[in-house]
Amino acid sequence: MTSLARGPVGAQPPDGARPPGGTRESEGTGEPDGTGHPALRGLPAVWLRANCPCAGCLDPGSGQRRTAITDLPADVTVAEVLASDAAVEVIFGPDGHRAVFAPGWLARYGDPGGEAGAGPAGPGPDGPDDDRTEDAKCLWAAADLAGGIPQGWWPRYLADPEHRRACLSAVLSQGLVVLHEVPCEPGAVLAVTRSLGYVRETNYGRLFDVRAEPAAANLAFTRLPIAPHTDNPYRDPVPTIQLLHCLHTAAGGGDSTFTDGFRAAAVLREQDPAAFTCLTATPVTFAYTDAATVLRATGPMIGLDPRGRIRQIRLNGRSVAPVRLPAAQARAFYSAYRAFAGLAASPEAMVTARLAPGDCVIFDNTRVLHGRTGFADGGGGGASTGRRHLQGCYADLDGLASAVAVLARGRPGGAGQPGHDGQAGRAGS
Amino acid sequence: MTSLARGPVGAQPPDGARPPGGTRESEGTGEPDGTGHPALRGLPAVWLRANCPCAGCLDPGSGQRRTAITDLPADVTVAEVLASDAAVEVIFGPDGHRAVFAPGWLARYGDPGGEAGAGPAGPGPDGPDDDRTEDAKCLWAAADLAGGIPQGWWPRYLADPEHRRACLSAVLSQGLVVLHEVPCEPGAVLAVTRSLGYVRETNYGRLFDVRAEPAAANLAFTRLPIAPHTDNPYRDPVPTIQLLHCLHTAAGGGDSTFTDGFRAAAVLREQDPAAFTCLTATPVTFAYTDAATVLRATGPMIGLDPRGRIRQIRLNGRSVAPVRLPAAQARAFYSAYRAFAGLAASPEAMVTARLAPGDCVIFDNTRVLHGRTGFADGGGGGASTGRRHLQGCYADLDGLASAVAVLARGRPGGAGQPGHDGQAGRAGS
Repeated sequence: MTSLARGPVGAQPPDGARPPGGTRESEGTGEPDGTGHPALRGLPAVWLRANCPCAGCLDPGSGQRRTAITDLPADVTVAEVLASDAAVEVIFGPDGHRAVFAPGWLARYGDPGGEAGAGPAGPGPDGPDDDRTEDAKCLWAAADLAGGIPQGWWPRYLADPEHRRACLSAVLSQGLVVLHEVPCEPGAVLAVTRSLGYVRETNYGRLFDVRAEPAAANLAFTRLPIAPHTDNPYRDPVPTIQLLHCLHTAAGGGDSTFTDGFRAAAVLREQDPAAFTCLTATPVTFAYTDAATVLRATGPMIGLDPRGRIRQIRLNGRSVAPVRLPAAQARAFYSAYRAFAGLAASPEAMVTARLAPGDCVIFDNTRVLHGRTGFADGGGGGASTGRRHLQGCYADLDGLASAVAVLARGRPGGAGQPGHDGQAGRAGS
Repeated sequence: MTSLARGPVGAQPPDGARPPGGTRESEGTGEPDGTGHPALRGLPAVWLRANCPCAGCLDPGSGQRRTAITDLPADVTVAEVLASDAAVEVIFGPDGHRAVFAPGWLARYGDPGGEAGAGPAGPGPDGPDDDRTEDAKCLWAAADLAGGIPQGWWPRYLADPEHRRACLSAVLSQGLVVLHEVPCEPGAVLAVTRSLGYVRETNYGRLFDVRAEPAAANLAFTRLPIAPHTDNPYRDPVPTIQLLHCLHTAAGGGDSTFTDGFRAAAVLREQDPAAFTCLTATPVTFAYTDAATVLRATGPMIGLDPRGRIRQIRLNGRSVAPVRLPAAQARAFYSAYRAFAGLAASPEAMVTARLAPGDCVIFDNTRVLHGRTGFADGGGGGASTGRRHLQGCYADLDGLASAVAVLARGRPGGAGQPGHDGQAGRAGS
């Protein structure tokens, strides 16, 4: 780093104050907005001004930005730079506004070498720019989980924050975890949900019972096998987390299946790029109707982010509505849909696990496809007669990710510390 | 319609049965999958088979599809067609499976003239294929709401289902409605929420108080003016509905503002297509941190559906994190962001309304930007001294849309009747 001045720099220098020993210099690099000083790391004047950490721009109490983008001068320039190892002070033109940045913070967003900021695109210095796309995930095939799906133990989860963090992190990275030894009591799934976020109540209630019913409004509530799917694609927003807590196992069958839908989509992209593109570009409507409910939602089976990365899977053969497409496109769509569903159900992709009473699986419903084998219940329907019974609950990934980040605050170098996430004010002041 | 056979056709003909008087004919049109009969409306064999309404394919109890796409023959053809004014019976090759469709239902998905199905793309016969994009909305400028934002009255809303349906429909079409005469009691906003769907609980609770607080963790909880924004873009999924219920008004100021964000984006697309494209293509991270919470979410400020239609706005200057982009792209991004925020706050786009005690505004948080003017509270902070106090709550659009559809079941030609939404089994059998 080119040090032009040394000495302490206060986060909020009074008007006219400058670091002792510091020198000012005007910009003359020919950049249209006056930027170009090596200490600025290639970050343009508007970027610096939009992220000014002074108390006038960024509320010290809340850490929120007070200054609207429309309040900034449209012709903002960098008029002067005063840099030391400890701070980079910028005087902006045309209005003389002043900002003080930490050099390391600028380096995380700009180019560490001081050239034009051409590092990995996207915000956030220390991780993927969007932690919900395939780039931020650990994709897996069945063989990768041959030793079992990620697991934890509810009593330890309650007692040990590090175990809790590890279990919940598995949902973010691999898409699922199973917690053993959750009490076999109706409603216990709500306690698990509350430990990681907030219940997403729906027309099915705060929790729902998955067991064979005489007049099922949903095939989930029968003994039929269910192909790999995401839940509730007829809802928007889709619940992004699902929990299933096993209270009783079936007399025979009823094994659970799980598939990494992101990986299945990535395999389709490799094997048949046209089919992949078709499923990313075709809006599909999913629908659910009962006496009290009419739900419809539309989206592609493979949702991408603006940079083309896999971000959300919607796959559910039970609720897909007829597509309205010209014949040739309809043929292409159903062919691509078949290929994707086939990959999702292939032995190479799909793991089968038998939940035991007390097991509660938590999974990312935007990514992990779940299903089950068909089953036979024992006679009588009582608790001890082999009648399969799961209780389910929906929640959302943002709350779970927040829980993980807060738990990580106590760890060395952990994410989630105030200011760590790139809020300019807390990181830069 | 070309009638090839006449007579009643049962929805579930027993194996080998056929309509009295019907005649069979083989296909010979040269279509690769054997399709081409005029009664099939240009719908290809795979479409017909994937939407077969027989009880083996579509569960009569739940209306859900039982047959996985992977269970269908990959080389499905239409072997024979037997059509009357009342029914179109299709025998598929190579396996002889049989389906009976209602001709009107086929016409809604295929081409009514019997040619290749090239009608409006997308599923759903009677409305837009995706009711969340700009195509399904009634966009408005400030002048369009000069007579006031759509309004209703809570007592009538409770007593009159048609008034309730009209109020909630306004949220779907125009993005907002204000209900007057909601009791000025803390927690009343929860009753309004329950009337239209389900509370989305967050780290702010099931409801939250919007009033000036001494050490605010969010600028919403100060007296500062707030520029037009969507709430919680740092959450994914974003709450898609917000409710704000006024309990007390300020001594001065504190007016609410509303902007149609879809229209602001459409204006930007017209005025500056490059800026529009930049905001659709640049993932932006929004962040919120407090002692117990670390939320981050990433998405474009203007979200599009796969067909390029405006579908979700994320705009919030208080919580936007620094973007990580090469300098030229960063300049373009902040310029586009400024232009969009400027359009959203322009007098041409933004309506200002002063909520009175008892008013509860309900709005689409994926579309309508809200804000407020700064305000002064009266002294003392008691209930009668002019201390502004709103209570807010989040919910979701899917539940509201379901409530509207269920209410519409009672209307002539109303949507939302079982089978109306394009579920093949209920519509076609």
